[in-house]
Amino acid sequence: MRILSGIQPSGTLHLGNYFGMMHRMINYQANNELFCFLVNYHALTTVFDAGLLRQQTFNAACDFLALGLDPDKSVFWVQSDVPEVTELTWLLSNVAGMGLLERSHSYKDKIAKGIPASHGLFAYPVLMAADILLFGGEKVPVGKDQKQHLEIARDIAIRFNGTYGETFIIPEPDIEEDVAVVPGIDGQKMSKSYGNTLEIFADEKSLRKKVMSIKTDSTPVDEPKPVKDNPLFDLYALFLDEKGRAELEERFLTPGLRYGDVKKELFGAIWEHFAPYRKERERLAADKQFVLAAMKKGAAKARAAAAPFLEKARRNVGLDYRNQA
Amino acid sequence: MRILSGIQPSGTLHLGNYFGMMHRMINYQANNELFCFLVNYHALTTVFDAGLLRQQTFNAACDFLALGLDPDKSVFWVQSDVPEVTELTWLLSNVAGMGLLERSHSYKDKIAKGIPASHGLFAYPVLMAADILLFGGEKVPVGKDQKQHLEIARDIAIRFNGTYGETFIIPEPDIEEDVAVVPGIDGQKMSKSYGNTLEIFADEKSLRKKVMSIKTDSTPVDEPKPVKDNPLFDLYALFLDEKGRAELEERFLTPGLRYGDVKKELFGAIWEHFAPYRKERERLAADKQFVLAAMKKGAAKARAAAAPFLEKARRNVGLDYRNQA
Repeated sequence: MRILSGIQPSGTLHLGNYFGMMHRMINYQANNELFCFLVNYHALTTVFDAGLLRQQTFNAACDFLALGLDPDKSVFWVQSDVPEVTELTWLLSNVAGMGLLERSHSYKDKIAKGIPASHGLFAYPVLMAADILLFGGEKVPVGKDQKQHLEIARDIAIRFNGTYGETFIIPEPDIEEDVAVVPGIDGQKMSKSYGNTLEIFADEKSLRKKVMSIKTDSTPVDEPKPVKDNPLFDLYALFLDEKGRAELEERFLTPGLRYGDVKKELFGAIWEHFAPYRKERERLAADKQFVLAAMKKGAAKARAAAAPFLEKARRNVGLDYRNQA
Repeated sequence: MRILSGIQPSGTLHLGNYFGMMHRMINYQANNELFCFLVNYHALTTVFDAGLLRQQTFNAACDFLALGLDPDKSVFWVQSDVPEVTELTWLLSNVAGMGLLERSHSYKDKIAKGIPASHGLFAYPVLMAADILLFGGEKVPVGKDQKQHLEIARDIAIRFNGTYGETFIIPEPDIEEDVAVVPGIDGQKMSKSYGNTLEIFADEKSLRKKVMSIKTDSTPVDEPKPVKDNPLFDLYALFLDEKGRAELEERFLTPGLRYGDVKKELFGAIWEHFAPYRKERERLAADKQFVLAAMKKGAAKARAAAAPFLEKARRNVGLDYRNQA
């Protein structure tokens, strides 16, 4: 199964990203053909600082490679290294109804948040449809917020095939229902926009400080501690197996547990868990040429996968005047 | 001066096209750098028949080459042979305000005419802006109906330069004010949509038939004929110099002139005027490889002219993560 996933190269990775989308994606590699790309064209709809975008794109490449995205096994590239996707965007535009795009929740939400209403923001779902269709994506993991975008992509693909003849594979959504909800240090869902994240590759001092500030309740030391809706418990549990989780629960329910001690332990668990990745991340960041070579190879593989779909699409709409009878 | 002009490869050329836009454009070649391209990407917004688009594109290439567009002197290509223009379209989209596009008369007119409201139709002016900015067009000949599109292109260019730093040349319009209005055979402005055209490359029989059906008034033979608002007079005048026109006027004002005789003469004038072009057109249509080679060469020249603008735009928005410090 060809699984396709585009990732925003925005900011630093946190535990919410890792135990949500990333972990899942790295695991896909075992039994699927994973196509994964950093969507810097999409990022342009909200990032207007060239230096920042450059840095975020390179950093995201390092992050993913460090965390186990295997550039030999999978196809991993930077979106703008295969600009063919913008050509397909145009071809798809002519069968994308305005009503379909006008109904996009994501567009309306962004406008409501004060992002200026640009044509790029409006056309975002068409570019996303091109991302999927160009590479013959069969399955697309989507969170709740991206579900409508996939429906738009399916609608565009069906219309294109109907108008011009069979060209594209109709992608299926892979709704992420069983994804663990990772709490932030304030107990809300961990999210960059809430400022409550624990970054995977933070330095020791700032990570420790953040872990020590995880919100806890005021249960006295000599009473049992709650395990439900307790972000400290839930965060720690992410790093434990079933047996470890049972033991942690037992400790919480036993009077005498100090939250401060558990926080120190949790910091240690996080720091240790990511130690090999951090080391690899440091190695990659220092070996820029290696990272660039990996992305170049990824782009070449992506381009090769795109070629038959693009060629067919160009032919089916009639751009190939050279083949005129 | 670099003059840039995109042409719809739709249908067969008529006298209105020739004495309007084409004649003017061929003449530009003498003292300017002419960049002229067949906009088959744009045509996709209204043409959904691949075979038709292929044929119209090839035919338009033959038409222009036959009529004197010099592929060595000028840069003449088919839009989709330089797909970089679609990448620039995306980059421009992020500084193109939705309000700007929503105010487009052309979009509203097309919808009013019953063309389905697709995203392609809506994004048409952004692609047109990319057409102009990618090749550093300094001057763009525009008819009244395209004036607003050029204003949109200018607005986008100014915003892009303002947001990301100087990147593009701001194009100037070359409003076609002194263009002769060519009447159709019914006396209205000659236009494909009125079905009143005289095709340049029609076969002898059908051209003769059309010329003989030019609308005339019922002035008796033995009375002077009007020269004002008389399509027969105006059409004939297009093929005459000043002296010839004065003589024709004299003949119209002298009783005894038969419209039927004048029509026969006019047919002869048209047929003769286009004889060398028709011969060249036939030669080209039969030598497909020559035409394709000319278009290939044109695309290579266009691509070379585009490269520095595209590279600068990619760098200025921050797609060049490889150059990250």
